[in-house]
Amino acid sequence: MFAEPSLNAFMAQGPGRWSEVREQVTGLLTGEQHRGAVEPALRPLSAVRLHLPFTPGDYVDFFGNEYHAANAGRIFRPDGDPLTPNWKHMPIGYHGRSGTIVPSGTPVPRPCGQRRGQDGPTYGPSRRLDFEAEVGFVVGAGSPGPVPVSAFDRHVFGVFLLNDWSARDLQAWESQPLGPFLAKSFATSVSPWVVPLEALEHARVSPPPRDPEPLPYLADSGKQGLDLALEVRLNGHLVASPPYAGTYWTAAQMLAHMTVNGATARTGDLFASGTVSGPDRDQRGCLLELSWGGAEPLTLPDGSVRSFLEDGDEVAITATAPAPGGARIGFGEVSGHIQPANDR
Amino acid sequence: MFAEPSLNAFMAQGPGRWSEVREQVTGLLTGEQHRGAVEPALRPLSAVRLHLPFTPGDYVDFFGNEYHAANAGRIFRPDGDPLTPNWKHMPIGYHGRSGTIVPSGTPVPRPCGQRRGQDGPTYGPSRRLDFEAEVGFVVGAGSPGPVPVSAFDRHVFGVFLLNDWSARDLQAWESQPLGPFLAKSFATSVSPWVVPLEALEHARVSPPPRDPEPLPYLADSGKQGLDLALEVRLNGHLVASPPYAGTYWTAAQMLAHMTVNGATARTGDLFASGTVSGPDRDQRGCLLELSWGGAEPLTLPDGSVRSFLEDGDEVAITATAPAPGGARIGFGEVSGHIQPANDR
Repeated sequence: MFAEPSLNAFMAQGPGRWSEVREQVTGLLTGEQHRGAVEPALRPLSAVRLHLPFTPGDYVDFFGNEYHAANAGRIFRPDGDPLTPNWKHMPIGYHGRSGTIVPSGTPVPRPCGQRRGQDGPTYGPSRRLDFEAEVGFVVGAGSPGPVPVSAFDRHVFGVFLLNDWSARDLQAWESQPLGPFLAKSFATSVSPWVVPLEALEHARVSPPPRDPEPLPYLADSGKQGLDLALEVRLNGHLVASPPYAGTYWTAAQMLAHMTVNGATARTGDLFASGTVSGPDRDQRGCLLELSWGGAEPLTLPDGSVRSFLEDGDEVAITATAPAPGGARIGFGEVSGHIQPANDR
Repeated sequence: MFAEPSLNAFMAQGPGRWSEVREQVTGLLTGEQHRGAVEPALRPLSAVRLHLPFTPGDYVDFFGNEYHAANAGRIFRPDGDPLTPNWKHMPIGYHGRSGTIVPSGTPVPRPCGQRRGQDGPTYGPSRRLDFEAEVGFVVGAGSPGPVPVSAFDRHVFGVFLLNDWSARDLQAWESQPLGPFLAKSFATSVSPWVVPLEALEHARVSPPPRDPEPLPYLADSGKQGLDLALEVRLNGHLVASPPYAGTYWTAAQMLAHMTVNGATARTGDLFASGTVSGPDRDQRGCLLELSWGGAEPLTLPDGSVRSFLEDGDEVAITATAPAPGGARIGFGEVSGHIQPANDR
């Protein structure tokens, strides 16, 4: 398994094999060593800097956190309802670009594109470049069709962190009627580790109550959520601590929705939660929310002020989850820094 | 080359090699044999029924035909402008699902999903299932960043036909604010042949005049369009003859737009034109337009009536293009028939 260039071949073998290998590796470790050590052990040796932990298939990005969706709605549509009418009936999502998924540490040049202008659109480097702190899930054992909520654990191998870099000015102009495109497709960064679902048993929590009750194919019960504590650092300063546990739609619901139309899921297909935010200001997982669309710029401890990302800025997202004995499992961080636009 | 399981390895070698091989193959053929024969010869031997001609990377679907976009706007937003404000400034597009791209002949089960209802959404098989007749383009030689309009021929290997099956009821309910998702992701059918761009020299035509003039990165001149004559048959009856030549945005502009933000293009990445329609009713490339959203059902020569597709219906899309000596090159057809929903 360790000689594989990515986790895909191992992930495709299914949950029986995942458990078997995990037990073998865990058996070699004791006491303090156990803390989180199983996860890096499952990372292939080639997964050093600038290598992806798996070969991505299709990438779907959801919009499953109510705090984020409602804040975005309030910022973009101040006179309308914060949530669109469909939001509480399904995990809304869209397909992103797999070919520009990059490993943590890969520099991110500022994207260029069209922005709305007073006399028509203008072209140039994005002026409202943002990060989005998200939790990602990767399919191990594929499915030729629908994956019910109850079958989630048999198909999804593990969990990682993802930064869905977003050019808000490009997004605002291009998104009608077909959704975000160039605003997101220039780069999506992922953490170098995949934490097996099985290692997160102690992190399982009940998701928030749903009102209205979802349609039967999205119904769930029990501890389908995950208590992951995310932290976002901008140039080394902690700017947000988004709690994933409060995310409205679970990963199991996302996969069930994504496949209910008959779509297949393949080894390496990934999907992400959407920006993770919480009810408090310091729990918001993107600058759009943290600076309220630029209206309330953020002052960092070093005195610098940010509404959106500047060239040279570095964003690092980390997370921890409860483990046995009061310990916490650490996720590998996903980081990236902004380079000047290539056309300058 | 013919032993490859897909065209990808050959396509990745770039235009010099494409020409070389084409000349070799053409040299073996004479007279009548020449007509279109180069194209099937470039199809790998494995590309029989139920095999894809190439291994798909990222799939982007555009919305680049003004007749289609304006008709869709009139049907969905009867009180608004037919086109959104951005439409004439950029080829609008979104990412589709690569994992459900299927070869011509693959049956298409009717997808299930959520439809808007009077007392909230309901779940079940789509009631407004449609086809979309499109022209697809596949990247041969990849690019690490922007592909200018003028570099199109150095990166795109060839052209094929694509049916972007669409569940209009799912689409109408799910698409705000992130665009189509389950309405499209259940299946996308592609023709088994890829016609090399080089074989379409005689099909090159000037695209329609653009007003307003596009931004410089989308500027073009000369014969950047293609005179492809599409035909759509429903259960064997010709229901539409969409002319691709009138499509507003060219494939070169689509690729330039798709990569202007720095996104890479890989061998096997594909993109499609969006539904091809013309100014006349019998030139509309989908049932949504042909039946005007169901308000004007279509009567077929056998007396049957259709607003949208019924179980058992077969859709076949073909196309021809001008070739030397007044002949026409034929594209391999893309066909598929609708199976009853799997949950019935």
